[in-house]
Amino acid sequence: MAKLLSGKEAAASLDAKLVSTVEKLRAQGVMPRLAVIRCGEDSSDLAYERGILKKAEKIGVEAVRIHFPADTDKEPLIAKIRELNEDPSVHGVLLFRPLPKPLKKDAEEICNTLDPAKDVDAMTDLSCAGVYEGKDLGFTPCTPEACLEILDFYGIDLTGKDVTVIGRSLVVGRPAAMMLMKRNATVTICHTKTKDVPAAARRADVIVSAVGKLNTLTGDYVREGQIVLDVSVNWDPEKNDGQGGLAGDAVFDEVSPVVDAITPVPGGVGSVTTSVLMKHVLEAAVRSCC
Amino acid sequence: MAKLLSGKEAAASLDAKLVSTVEKLRAQGVMPRLAVIRCGEDSSDLAYERGILKKAEKIGVEAVRIHFPADTDKEPLIAKIRELNEDPSVHGVLLFRPLPKPLKKDAEEICNTLDPAKDVDAMTDLSCAGVYEGKDLGFTPCTPEACLEILDFYGIDLTGKDVTVIGRSLVVGRPAAMMLMKRNATVTICHTKTKDVPAAARRADVIVSAVGKLNTLTGDYVREGQIVLDVSVNWDPEKNDGQGGLAGDAVFDEVSPVVDAITPVPGGVGSVTTSVLMKHVLEAAVRSCC
Repeated sequence: MAKLLSGKEAAASLDAKLVSTVEKLRAQGVMPRLAVIRCGEDSSDLAYERGILKKAEKIGVEAVRIHFPADTDKEPLIAKIRELNEDPSVHGVLLFRPLPKPLKKDAEEICNTLDPAKDVDAMTDLSCAGVYEGKDLGFTPCTPEACLEILDFYGIDLTGKDVTVIGRSLVVGRPAAMMLMKRNATVTICHTKTKDVPAAARRADVIVSAVGKLNTLTGDYVREGQIVLDVSVNWDPEKNDGQGGLAGDAVFDEVSPVVDAITPVPGGVGSVTTSVLMKHVLEAAVRSCC
Repeated sequence: MAKLLSGKEAAASLDAKLVSTVEKLRAQGVMPRLAVIRCGEDSSDLAYERGILKKAEKIGVEAVRIHFPADTDKEPLIAKIRELNEDPSVHGVLLFRPLPKPLKKDAEEICNTLDPAKDVDAMTDLSCAGVYEGKDLGFTPCTPEACLEILDFYGIDLTGKDVTVIGRSLVVGRPAAMMLMKRNATVTICHTKTKDVPAAARRADVIVSAVGKLNTLTGDYVREGQIVLDVSVNWDPEKNDGQGGLAGDAVFDEVSPVVDAITPVPGGVGSVTTSVLMKHVLEAAVRSCC
């Protein structure tokens, strides 16, 4: 049976360091502050917002909620982001995405209004360039960095490892590939046009599954000795005796008896994301004051 | 024996289209213009400059040479780039890199002074973001795009193909990986820390070798049925009966009898680079006037 790579434990370890950073910042009179902007009432945005507020309170980061209706014009949203750019008391800004439909056509302009120095979840082009070039231009996206936090917590070195990333999104797959390569892994990026994803997965030492579809990572994708990072959070109506519950991409009962280690869902990568977000806010605060 | 993928023929085909675009632009009173900035007297810069001037003349692009001494301060160089940004008669700007040693510490600032709209060889962070995100933010780097031009010229579709890129530089390896993935290839990026590059190469349908070291791509890296794009241009002292000559990464006599197709060096990818540069200048000119 695979060892469970606990996101909760990795997060607890990271949180302890963050609390100590907050103390140092406060001693210098800096109150780390994150602005969270939500447009509309999307249920997953609301759940993420609750998670952020709870984590912020635990760490000692002040989280300021800003809300726009789903049918807001772009102008007030852009004006608010500009105001936050100029406000020295705000160190990080998170805008929930995807934006509601009426704003989607302006998403590029809206996202790139944010100062990359406050872009704690890599939504600007310049932050993306930083991820791609391996330079500190903004921040890395929180979810792939959560993968690295878990690997680091369990002392898993990536140098020379073969990693197969399943998914090429800009939120997870592509940045994960770049960040794992920066750690000297040999990365293969699979996607919907890949001719044999199971073969590419079986070949890897580490699988990062970011498909976002229930039961896509079956026993056919794995062999013994592997580490599986199951990044997706899907709704599984069969779970909990048919009451439904969260689940990853993996068919857990097929995959976990085979591989060496796997992140559970829930309690895996997703449990570290808000801690990484707070880490970025604190890094932004440290940069702004030192 | 492998089919030779001729960069010269691919370039000739592209050049014919570019000449026709120049005619259309001139008919609208637009004279496409490229500024080429060289610092110092590096011999490979000088060779590339000669190649650019020759190609520009052939296509009908006006190439303006700008020269600074190798020990120039950064200020006049940055001032010149700013002036070119503002000059509507200049559509593209190429700065030879790597910069001479005294300028290297300021390379980031110097490169990012250029307006991405005129960044015809992807030296700005925003152009890099465009390559990574698959968006039109600037231009792609010329060498990996030259690879795509050759593949397109020979009608080689990349969808579903397994591609192994050897090298992770920002000039070739990484952008090639992103651009091939955008064409729906499944890309593996190998580098100095990869544990078994020959195995990763043998597995691929297409190999992009951007190592920059003579005789690194041996018979051990290939199998029949493959396509090899040998991107590097190295100096081989043994070539031409010991007089020396240009050569790629591949041990040509070992690789070419095995694989289906290969780009020669010289006459391969490098022969298309200046045509791609001119294509970018014309695209910039079209965008600026239409």
